[in-house]
Amino acid sequence: MTARPNLESLRPFLAPQSFAIVGASTDATKVGARPVLLAKASGFKGKVYPINKGAEVVHGYPAYPSIKDVKEPIDTAFMAIPAPAVEAALLECAEAGVRAVVCVSAGMAEIGGEGIKRQSRMTAIARETGMRIVGPNCLGVFDVGHNFYATFAAGFLDPKFGFPALGSMSIVSQSGAFGMHAYTLCKFRGLSISSWLTTGNEADVEFGECLSYLADDPQTKVIVAYLEGARNKDSLVEGLEKARAACKPVIVIKVGRSEVGARAASSHTASLVGSDAAYDALFKQYGAFRARTITELVDVAVACNAGRYPTGPEFGTISISGGANVIMADAASEIGMDIPALPAAAQAKIAAVIPHAATRNPTDTTGGWSGQPDVFPRFMEVLADDGKLPSIIVFGSTMGTNVPFYTGVLDATQPIRDRHPDKLFIMSAVCSDEIRAMTEKRGMLVYEDADTAVRVLGALYGFTQAWKRDHAVPAIPKSTPRIPETAVSEVAAMAVLKKAGVPVVDHAVATSAAEAGKSAAKLKFPVVAKIVSADITHKTEIGGVQLGIATRKEAEKAYRTLTARAKKAAPKAKLDGVVIAKQVVGGVECILGAHNDPALGPVVMFGLGGIFVEVFKDVSFRIAPIDVAEAKAMIREVKGYALLAGARGHAPADVDATAKALSKLSLLAAANADRLESIDVNPFIALPKGKGAVAVDAVIVPRK
Amino acid sequence: MTARPNLESLRPFLAPQSFAIVGASTDATKVGARPVLLAKASGFKGKVYPINKGAEVVHGYPAYPSIKDVKEPIDTAFMAIPAPAVEAALLECAEAGVRAVVCVSAGMAEIGGEGIKRQSRMTAIARETGMRIVGPNCLGVFDVGHNFYATFAAGFLDPKFGFPALGSMSIVSQSGAFGMHAYTLCKFRGLSISSWLTTGNEADVEFGECLSYLADDPQTKVIVAYLEGARNKDSLVEGLEKARAACKPVIVIKVGRSEVGARAASSHTASLVGSDAAYDALFKQYGAFRARTITELVDVAVACNAGRYPTGPEFGTISISGGANVIMADAASEIGMDIPALPAAAQAKIAAVIPHAATRNPTDTTGGWSGQPDVFPRFMEVLADDGKLPSIIVFGSTMGTNVPFYTGVLDATQPIRDRHPDKLFIMSAVCSDEIRAMTEKRGMLVYEDADTAVRVLGALYGFTQAWKRDHAVPAIPKSTPRIPETAVSEVAAMAVLKKAGVPVVDHAVATSAAEAGKSAAKLKFPVVAKIVSADITHKTEIGGVQLGIATRKEAEKAYRTLTARAKKAAPKAKLDGVVIAKQVVGGVECILGAHNDPALGPVVMFGLGGIFVEVFKDVSFRIAPIDVAEAKAMIREVKGYALLAGARGHAPADVDATAKALSKLSLLAAANADRLESIDVNPFIALPKGKGAVAVDAVIVPRK
Repeated sequence: MTARPNLESLRPFLAPQSFAIVGASTDATKVGARPVLLAKASGFKGKVYPINKGAEVVHGYPAYPSIKDVKEPIDTAFMAIPAPAVEAALLECAEAGVRAVVCVSAGMAEIGGEGIKRQSRMTAIARETGMRIVGPNCLGVFDVGHNFYATFAAGFLDPKFGFPALGSMSIVSQSGAFGMHAYTLCKFRGLSISSWLTTGNEADVEFGECLSYLADDPQTKVIVAYLEGARNKDSLVEGLEKARAACKPVIVIKVGRSEVGARAASSHTASLVGSDAAYDALFKQYGAFRARTITELVDVAVACNAGRYPTGPEFGTISISGGANVIMADAASEIGMDIPALPAAAQAKIAAVIPHAATRNPTDTTGGWSGQPDVFPRFMEVLADDGKLPSIIVFGSTMGTNVPFYTGVLDATQPIRDRHPDKLFIMSAVCSDEIRAMTEKRGMLVYEDADTAVRVLGALYGFTQAWKRDHAVPAIPKSTPRIPETAVSEVAAMAVLKKAGVPVVDHAVATSAAEAGKSAAKLKFPVVAKIVSADITHKTEIGGVQLGIATRKEAEKAYRTLTARAKKAAPKAKLDGVVIAKQVVGGVECILGAHNDPALGPVVMFGLGGIFVEVFKDVSFRIAPIDVAEAKAMIREVKGYALLAGARGHAPADVDATAKALSKLSLLAAANADRLESIDVNPFIALPKGKGAVAVDAVIVPRK
Repeated sequence: MTARPNLESLRPFLAPQSFAIVGASTDATKVGARPVLLAKASGFKGKVYPINKGAEVVHGYPAYPSIKDVKEPIDTAFMAIPAPAVEAALLECAEAGVRAVVCVSAGMAEIGGEGIKRQSRMTAIARETGMRIVGPNCLGVFDVGHNFYATFAAGFLDPKFGFPALGSMSIVSQSGAFGMHAYTLCKFRGLSISSWLTTGNEADVEFGECLSYLADDPQTKVIVAYLEGARNKDSLVEGLEKARAACKPVIVIKVGRSEVGARAASSHTASLVGSDAAYDALFKQYGAFRARTITELVDVAVACNAGRYPTGPEFGTISISGGANVIMADAASEIGMDIPALPAAAQAKIAAVIPHAATRNPTDTTGGWSGQPDVFPRFMEVLADDGKLPSIIVFGSTMGTNVPFYTGVLDATQPIRDRHPDKLFIMSAVCSDEIRAMTEKRGMLVYEDADTAVRVLGALYGFTQAWKRDHAVPAIPKSTPRIPETAVSEVAAMAVLKKAGVPVVDHAVATSAAEAGKSAAKLKFPVVAKIVSADITHKTEIGGVQLGIATRKEAEKAYRTLTARAKKAAPKAKLDGVVIAKQVVGGVECILGAHNDPALGPVVMFGLGGIFVEVFKDVSFRIAPIDVAEAKAMIREVKGYALLAGARGHAPADVDATAKALSKLSLLAAANADRLESIDVNPFIALPKGKGAVAVDAVIVPRK
């Protein structure tokens, strides 16, 4: 992990005592005027120093021709100046003792060429001086609790839009536009906010550091995040893990799911995108919720903001529409939530309220609710007390449009909800913004769409699970071998794997026909023979492999045949002999892999052999290293897992041994992050349960 | 197809001249008062006859003690009476010459037992008298154009909610609660409505008939539908096809996607649910859009209501956020829409507007749009004129919160939108209901979420495709064979398939060892031998199959071995001999299937052999019969299609021959809807391209 300045260094970005604006303009319509106007309008309590060569006063604050002229401690500076002027201004700031700089200037790495050089200089200045820099090419930062707005976002100055209210949700976004978009959506959805950070091109301060800071920040309870690509895997992982350990939900949009999308992402930012599957794995491992859409992001953020998380996947429904119950059952089944049947006694209680009601759960009031708000508390009581369900969804359809009746239902059910402060109550109904806000105030979440209600519940339960998990990232043992720095033969690759603790098939290298025969006899038949050469990667294609060798004679002959073929097909290849290996019979063919993701570093992969991987892309990934438990989860995740569990007449395979090997492979990959390109263990045979698992062939590709 | 009364018989449900309310109440809070109050409040122009034993006047209308006393023609009657009283009242209605009855009474088939009997009587009365009945257990019907409200929905009487405005969207829903829910959501989303029909238990009038009626109805342009299960496949198919042929979009929610959901659906209605995959196939074949959620239903309905459909899958974007472009690219890639690169000259024009803009498409204004509304028309012009893109999405993020600027953008882009009345323009921005309504009025669709914008575009393009498709449901040839009425051997099954036009492997049945040898020699080696017996279904398990027979001698021996094994394993089974068949070498193993869906009748299935079907459920379905073109689409739909197309070193397989066989199988299944349980053609080998395809084994199971 790269040594980073400590998180305290980020504090001036959100809670400075003094604030200088470089390029402060007296013209209120200019970008350079905005932070000054915002400081004034928001009631920022610290000192404000507009830097302006000509003016004596800028929007009521005494101005200074240069930052050097301030002669007072400056915590934070804002820079609204053209890219070419940034370097000099930064040096001046550093000299003046500025601790933190917000630089919104575009024309940096995102335009390539000269811009990349400019941005490198910014990074170098930050590293050399210890002064922290947010940006460039961002929209700045703000902190509601400290009335601090280091941004050129104009909306706050519009009285119709106004300044945010202080809340417990914070936003960190690599994109300025997206950060403002997310803030606006959250505001319109009734959410208030604490800190807002847009990191832009990240010359210095990284997305992951901001996560870490917010994970530590007592005011922040919920983190909403937008990520295009990690510039530093370590700080990203650290931030996610800190948030997880602090039981703060991270709801993240990571764009670039599709290849087309990834191309679009990389063309518009300077970040490394990496593979989407690796990000999926990362979020899964660290318990962040990856929202597929912005709507979903806001829906889940609203729920997290309420601060209640279900203790189990079970929930009950009280619906005035059978159809909505089916919709909820469909959604629950898709995301692994559960609508368990009520005990018979509880069902009888519901039947006593409305005779033809659906009592099993999902419960359905049928038309019997009409005009009777007390139906709802009576159902709710049974679900909460008798059913002991951690969450209850009321589907009220258009009930919210009849305000007196709807309020009656809220009143009638209030005592039960009060009695169960640990349970989640969700209302799914069409209602106005006012009615929704009123309902939320009373402690019920509101989602118009019943499908959304269930999916949000699932997201919340995902956090419950992530937070209680004892997440073990294994330490890398000192004994973990180094992979070679140049291409090696299969035999050398297998030796490295074996040393790393991945079981490999018994084998021996023969350099003569006689030796081949002798080795074969020792290994016991049948055996296979393969040519050994670091220069020949596609052995099968040149006829360099022979299976099913049953006698010593055949083994001797095989040596001669393979050697002759190899010499003919690849006259320049250096031949290291012929490997004689035990032929593995039975078991399930798997593929274990590791590769170095450009953004997230070593990643391990698991899949079943052949078409499973090639046609169905039925594979699972994790960021390396992983322990055996995580490896097992990874194996269970593939659709073809049924084959390992014993489908289609197969004996159950040794999943334990396979998981152990996968964990060892992950340690090997992690220990070689600096020189790994990829490792393919293919095939890796999971033998029948109790009989272990072995690597039969392996390719290690070091980074060029 | 069951003979149904003609669609004209449904007219009185929506446009009656006279309306009787059986059980009309003078108490305004009672259900029986509502249709009377609604007739009065809505300004219904026809005659209103409240039926009430005691009162002389009900809410201003002269009342009658019995429907018989009216002595005037009655088009439509509404029944708000308890279930046990319905039968007698219906008979009175029929006697009085009533043409249509809306019966909302619950306590019918949905409660089982006695309720089922009551409902059967309703059906019988409808069939016997020709009087049409909507319901029971529904919420009634309404028609805005005719101010006609045969429902007990109370909301319309609440001045805050009010009566609907006349529009061109109609709703048909099996669930009353859902129908009202959908209407309310659409209303809140600014949509107006024409007809609204809830069909409940469908004792008589079916969901599909309503679809057909609306397909013919000139006022209806868009159909929103909610389906739990088809009670009559034929009327459903007819309705969907009529709507498709009339280019009217059907946006349907069919609940019960998951098994859990299907159970929940069947427990709360009296309908047959059938398999979800069969419904998916049905909607695909007839071009209906299946919405996954109610939110999606409304989103697509709003777009359809605007009445513009894209001519191609290509679209352009003008985004002020690169992130939103990535989100749109991700969504487009997932649903098969396309964001093509602009020609170089067009890109140069965009670069001339903003230097560092992303010009390729998706286009990104970068921060350069700030304060400049004219950036948008200049981008839009290039996408529409130079790019010739059928649809353009503008991502304006929070632009809608700055009303003057936003209005400026709309003004500036108006001329270009006017010049292209055939193109679709979508705004994706956070804006208030007022701003959204204003934008829509100007001919742009508005979706806050950019992901939604793309998905809606995809749904619209799906309609374009469905409408232009020359949908050929093949006629069933007279020569199509009948399947046997009882279980038959594989050999008999193959004979039926062959007669139906499905190619089968060359084979002969031998009843002696000598005959086996002779047949084998004639077929040419290698051959396979299999025991023939209708009583033995799992031939492999008893050792009743032998592969790779290479000589006449081996064939003779195989006859003896198999016969002996069969006699030992199943002494009571009737043996019909041993089939000798050519062993098929090479090709790709497939499965063709047909089964009789409980709701939708004969359905054909295609999949690749083995684990593809068993582990991955990688299969596609269609409602039978289908033509060869549809069969090809079905084959291309499976994920494993790559193997048929020639992946993993396979030669490309004969997809044409396979599709032809699948179409023939679908005709066989459709012709035997009355006695089919299932047909499994497994394996069916698709030989290399040009070499055909053959059924190697088949099981036909007639319905018990």
